Amino acid sequence: MDSGIRREIKSWKFHKGNLADIWEVIRDCPKGSAQDALIWEQISTPHCFNNYDAVDPDINYYQGEGWYTTEIEIANPFLDGKTILFFEGSGVITDVYLNTKHLHKHIGGYDQWEVDLTPYLIKNKTKYTLTIKCDNSRNIETIPSDLSDFNIYGGLYREVKIIYQPNIFIKNIQIIPTYFYEKNNGNILIKGKLNTPSKNLILYIKILDPSKKEIFKTQIIQIKDEFEETIKFESIHPWSPKTANLYSLEIEYEINHDKNKLTEKFGFRSFKFEKHGPFYLNGERLLLKGTHRHEEQAGRGCAQEITDLKKEMNLIKEMGANFIRLAHYQQSKEVLDLCDELGFLVWEEIPWCRGGLGNKNYKEMGKRLLNNMINQHFNHPSIIIWGLGNENDWPGDFSTFNKENIREYMNELNSIAHRLDPSRKTAIRRCDFCKDLVDIYSPSIWAGWYRGHYREYKEATLKHIRENDYFLHAEWGADSHPNRFSENPYLSINNLKTGIGTDERNNDSSLYGGIERVSKDGDWSENYACDLFDWTLKEQFTIKILTGSAFWPFKDFSTPLRKDNPIAYVNQKGVVQRDLIKKETYYVVQSYWSDKPMIRIFGHNWDIRWGKKLEEKEFRVYSNCPKVELFIDGKSLGTKKRNQQNFPSAGLRWKTPLSKGKHSILARAYHKKGVIEDSYNFEYQDEKWGSPKSIKSKYIKNKDNTLLWQIEVVDSKNRRCLDFKGIVYFNAAGISPLVINMGTSTGSKKIECSNGKAMIALNNSNEEAILVAHIEGLALCSEQYPPKEIV
Amino acid sequence: MDSGIRREIKSWKFHKGNLADIWEVIRDCPKGSAQDALIWEQISTPHCFNNYDAVDPDINYYQGEGWYTTEIEIANPFLDGKTILFFEGSGVITDVYLNTKHLHKHIGGYDQWEVDLTPYLIKNKTKYTLTIKCDNSRNIETIPSDLSDFNIYGGLYREVKIIYQPNIFIKNIQIIPTYFYEKNNGNILIKGKLNTPSKNLILYIKILDPSKKEIFKTQIIQIKDEFEETIKFESIHPWSPKTANLYSLEIEYEINHDKNKLTEKFGFRSFKFEKHGPFYLNGERLLLKGTHRHEEQAGRGCAQEITDLKKEMNLIKEMGANFIRLAHYQQSKEVLDLCDELGFLVWEEIPWCRGGLGNKNYKEMGKRLLNNMINQHFNHPSIIIWGLGNENDWPGDFSTFNKENIREYMNELNSIAHRLDPSRKTAIRRCDFCKDLVDIYSPSIWAGWYRGHYREYKEATLKHIRENDYFLHAEWGADSHPNRFSENPYLSINNLKTGIGTDERNNDSSLYGGIERVSKDGDWSENYACDLFDWTLKEQFTIKILTGSAFWPFKDFSTPLRKDNPIAYVNQKGVVQRDLIKKETYYVVQSYWSDKPMIRIFGHNWDIRWGKKLEEKEFRVYSNCPKVELFIDGKSLGTKKRNQQNFPSAGLRWKTPLSKGKHSILARAYHKKGVIEDSYNFEYQDEKWGSPKSIKSKYIKNKDNTLLWQIEVVDSKNRRCLDFKGIVYFNAAGISPLVINMGTSTGSKKIECSNGKAMIALNNSNEEAILVAHIEGLALCSEQYPPKEIV
Repeated sequence: MDSGIRREIKSWKFHKGNLADIWEVIRDCPKGSAQDALIWEQISTPHCFNNYDAVDPDINYYQGEGWYTTEIEIANPFLDGKTILFFEGSGVITDVYLNTKHLHKHIGGYDQWEVDLTPYLIKNKTKYTLTIKCDNSRNIETIPSDLSDFNIYGGLYREVKIIYQPNIFIKNIQIIPTYFYEKNNGNILIKGKLNTPSKNLILYIKILDPSKKEIFKTQIIQIKDEFEETIKFESIHPWSPKTANLYSLEIEYEINHDKNKLTEKFGFRSFKFEKHGPFYLNGERLLLKGTHRHEEQAGRGCAQEITDLKKEMNLIKEMGANFIRLAHYQQSKEVLDLCDELGFLVWEEIPWCRGGLGNKNYKEMGKRLLNNMINQHFNHPSIIIWGLGNENDWPGDFSTFNKENIREYMNELNSIAHRLDPSRKTAIRRCDFCKDLVDIYSPSIWAGWYRGHYREYKEATLKHIRENDYFLHAEWGADSHPNRFSENPYLSINNLKTGIGTDERNNDSSLYGGIERVSKDGDWSENYACDLFDWTLKEQFTIKILTGSAFWPFKDFSTPLRKDNPIAYVNQKGVVQRDLIKKETYYVVQSYWSDKPMIRIFGHNWDIRWGKKLEEKEFRVYSNCPKVELFIDGKSLGTKKRNQQNFPSAGLRWKTPLSKGKHSILARAYHKKGVIEDSYNFEYQDEKWGSPKSIKSKYIKNKDNTLLWQIEVVDSKNRRCLDFKGIVYFNAAGISPLVINMGTSTGSKKIECSNGKAMIALNNSNEEAILVAHIEGLALCSEQYPPKEIV
Repeated sequence: MDSGIRREIKSWKFHKGNLADIWEVIRDCPKGSAQDALIWEQISTPHCFNNYDAVDPDINYYQGEGWYTTEIEIANPFLDGKTILFFEGSGVITDVYLNTKHLHKHIGGYDQWEVDLTPYLIKNKTKYTLTIKCDNSRNIETIPSDLSDFNIYGGLYREVKIIYQPNIFIKNIQIIPTYFYEKNNGNILIKGKLNTPSKNLILYIKILDPSKKEIFKTQIIQIKDEFEETIKFESIHPWSPKTANLYSLEIEYEINHDKNKLTEKFGFRSFKFEKHGPFYLNGERLLLKGTHRHEEQAGRGCAQEITDLKKEMNLIKEMGANFIRLAHYQQSKEVLDLCDELGFLVWEEIPWCRGGLGNKNYKEMGKRLLNNMINQHFNHPSIIIWGLGNENDWPGDFSTFNKENIREYMNELNSIAHRLDPSRKTAIRRCDFCKDLVDIYSPSIWAGWYRGHYREYKEATLKHIRENDYFLHAEWGADSHPNRFSENPYLSINNLKTGIGTDERNNDSSLYGGIERVSKDGDWSENYACDLFDWTLKEQFTIKILTGSAFWPFKDFSTPLRKDNPIAYVNQKGVVQRDLIKKETYYVVQSYWSDKPMIRIFGHNWDIRWGKKLEEKEFRVYSNCPKVELFIDGKSLGTKKRNQQNFPSAGLRWKTPLSKGKHSILARAYHKKGVIEDSYNFEYQDEKWGSPKSIKSKYIKNKDNTLLWQIEVVDSKNRRCLDFKGIVYFNAAGISPLVINMGTSTGSKKIECSNGKAMIALNNSNEEAILVAHIEGLALCSEQYPPKEIV
């Protein structure tokens, strides 16, 4: 809903740490005085104060107070207008002060909220100090739990705005569309609410169709603080992932000779979950091809810039997805707008995640966040499911864990959701003892990762489809360490037990203890992850009653758990890295889901393959084209036809013996409208390398033209140790140009090697520094910066 | 008071950061699980969690929660005995948990306190988890103020003990000695208090004289919970700084067939502040030769180890001091024991310091800390003054500052102190509008540092002696940057105004703004500081009615203010560094105060002096011996007689022209019992150097055999820039051996050069690293570690 006059507040001073009192912000602070001791940093919102430390391998991320302060100028152009301070979301407990006065406390890190400043403003006084305290301290009585597998970020990480409204304005607008796909007609019910009752207010209502053409106009004279209007539509352009048609509602009115306008988008679509599957949209079966996203990014924490958000959402679209579960909390309006515009069906949920059930305040918070999510995102056509919780079978935050109490609370949430929005479904993921309480249930199926083999996927899924009236599979996938490749990714997982289920159980996500499982014992190579994706996606197409699934997650993300991962504190299950750089799995998914012709030879960054002399090696191509031809060193290895069910890589694989040395590879795909190609160069190593002895390094240009420092671990004969995956530590002395604490393969000061290699990006700087890479107990290598030579 | 059976708790796990709940400490935490995300460090108490960050130049020191947990085993040998958990002091707000139960909250960072565990122990259960939360968050309603010029440290930074007592024990013992120096006799009144009334408890009382000989014995049968006993003494060995004679009281008793024993020391002394001075001890005038100390040290924060504490107190004794103001709070029992044993008269005070006056809780806290200080330290003969506040004229923590309210509160504190202890005086420093309320007043006199010239010292002091019935001068001195020497320390302070007072006023301590003052405009050389000390000490000896003074402070210390000092966040006014390394000023003081023969040629670390060709240069010797002879390059420059009033260096100064190159200097002092010498080598530079161009470096052995990395800033002809005082940043890549965040001249990653030179100590390590020193915008220099060559 867009109305009034909106002024974003971007520029703030920020202090990380607690303050004794708001007075510490307001009092005079001469340079060098005792009051001047606190360090304040100039920042722009959106700002998350865990933007780097969330993935700093050496520490726990900061959980505490962060203070923001800025000078604001109030200039409300409306006569006796209302001045509202609006927050798109801030974390987790937020206090608002105007000068020294405490105005408001908001608890909850993900919902929108606002404070009416009007009563606190003084006539003819325009300048005020606005101070916001954000607090993400560990807290047993707020949700989500600190046991959750994601950071509970702190900061003013979404938009903050001042909204000027006339003294009478529309506070809330709900658009309830009904769509009859059989006749392609329908209607909308508009429910509006004014801030205060008003007599004789004339509302001019307009509807624009998806092409922005005005198709309807009316006016209503308002007499109360609420109004309703029903409008009928024929020849509707329905909303779907393929054609994300959005209509607009515009309401204009005049008050005290000031004009004000409200605009809101909506769409027509009808969906249905059939008992035991499948899913239908606008009358046709649609396989939900889904993923998940956390609201966070390398270097930004959860304060994602809109340009980055758009880039990410477009990457998801290009991958071919039509469904996103917004895990594990209400995301920003911009996210939902993009889902509407790009055509994603959405499961959005409240952050009731892990730990158990807290006290009265805890429960109130969960209900409040559910209310707010539904009310605030009601009009988005993309949303089909309201998620009520995730992994609520995971105990730990309280000395007792009572399933009955959790069931009772879940039931209450479910009723609230249905009462507020009868048009959508409710769902939860992984809490078997509550599965009967909600509309749709997603059990834990992690075949081939946390338990069992990926070949068990279909059987497990069919079992759950049978056992649950309404089933949807959220969360499956595999971690992969970028650029780690393996000639045999199955080497270390010989004793994988099958037939014991495919669910994640207590502490399976740990790298220690318990039975053999790929998550703990596998090599986290891109090869294995591609196999798991390849198999699972192929199988999903064979289950005609499958509603759909969402793999976990689209993008690597930071977590306070998993400190011993190859990249510390990063959940590496994304098909893109935390900086949106694609991993190989992205292309696997795209080859199954995308309609646009694509081709990818597996292993672009697999710069050295290895084996015996002239050993036959396999090459795989992921493509959605019907025919692909492969060339090694310019010589064709023949053309293969794509067969979706021919695992791996839909039959697009070739074998050939390789000689030692350099090679080129090229694949050419033929589709209806033409030809596309993919190619790269690589080396073949047929000598066995010895144990690691030293580190060599060089500066290289990255694909995006930025500079990388790359190290290789070599044996005594200077041969790269291609299976070395020890930890390398990067640091620098002088003014460090190292890009660190990004949680990516090129932005981590501590990282496991991939095939005896690691890299770190460098900020563009002319300052001198000495770069060092070291491997504990093994070797150290140093290099001057700026570089003398770039390869 | 020592009684019962005491078991110190030393070993803990520590987490820096807030926790959601005590449950986070107690719950199961399998390796790699979600519960395992928190970083816990194994530490020993005493432990201060600001041990390094207090002087980290890049950040504000951490103010927040720190959690300590340990497994304890309770084994009380007494039948139905009491088990008491005793804290010597912890900061600032401390919560105690036994298993998950919250037992106690203590507010106050400096007083002793205890928790009776007995009611919470379960019969036959011996093992418990003991958890302590310390919180030093900024807090407007606790004292001292965060505007104070010292850190409000966090942690379990003093001893924690379990004390086992029988079910009846002596809770408190007060010994009130009276000493008549004229007849050398006196008495003591012993006031004891049991934890509970007891019939027929026989207390066997013994007194030992200072030579440990038993000189008195009696027994009393106890019938109530309180007892009193008066004992008379003849031929007393009085306590004084020269002969710190301590008597012992021993009380033994048997209960339930268990024996228990209490011991406590006391001493006889009588003191008197005469109206308008001077001060008398045991009937004789004594000039109070004083200094101050903060409870803190390099690398330890305020968790000083007892060996370091002893070393420091002995250094103070060797300097010749007889008086210490324990600034600005109650210090540990060990400090007071050492004052008793070594013979220091003491001013101990509560931490009501700066900011204004808070609410009811704030005021209660101040009164409670006063009560506790007096009750807990009552028996120490060293204490003569209870300090009630420091700089309470300094506003800033509250929007209003009301002098009348501060007066009223000060009055209340004064009454409490006198009621609890009529035998001692009350005092405050710097709060002119309260000066009439307490026994002794110390105004602000900072002649030659914060205002005016040091030559104005005597006039200012005499004026205050006249204006105050009882005057004592606490706090004077000068910052000095170790190893910084100057051929003309007066060069930059040509426009110093005199005749405008010598007090520190609002924001004078800032390095910015305001009128010219040495603190802001001087060069912070050791030369200037020595002159100021030299002059002030000389003058003090001429004021026969002076009670005494205490210079500020003995040791450099860390402060949250003063981030732009040559060593960031260090108050550099000490005569020793934060690691107890002596500065030149130490010897100046010693030459005035110590009775033991000493000699020091000024400028041991002044390795290069400079000037014109064959320019006459002055050499100074600080000595308390009557005659000193000086030799340059083996040639005598003659013998001089010491004349205390011949400024500078009591006439012990010589001039001679110097040739370019290396020289040796030796001074020989003649005293009653023999001869002592001091000597060093130096260089003379008669060429003018150019502007700084590069940095050269070398490894050198420190005096204590540890390794130093030393850098020199040189011009284009490789001549050291002897007046260069820019900031050098040290850092290292690899596994850094750099000793940083010590707040010393050899333990700081950011430090102003002294005479174009700087050093950093290195941890003994065989790990490879690259060391870098850089000066922003100028030069960078790097060196491999471990060193190939040590000079």
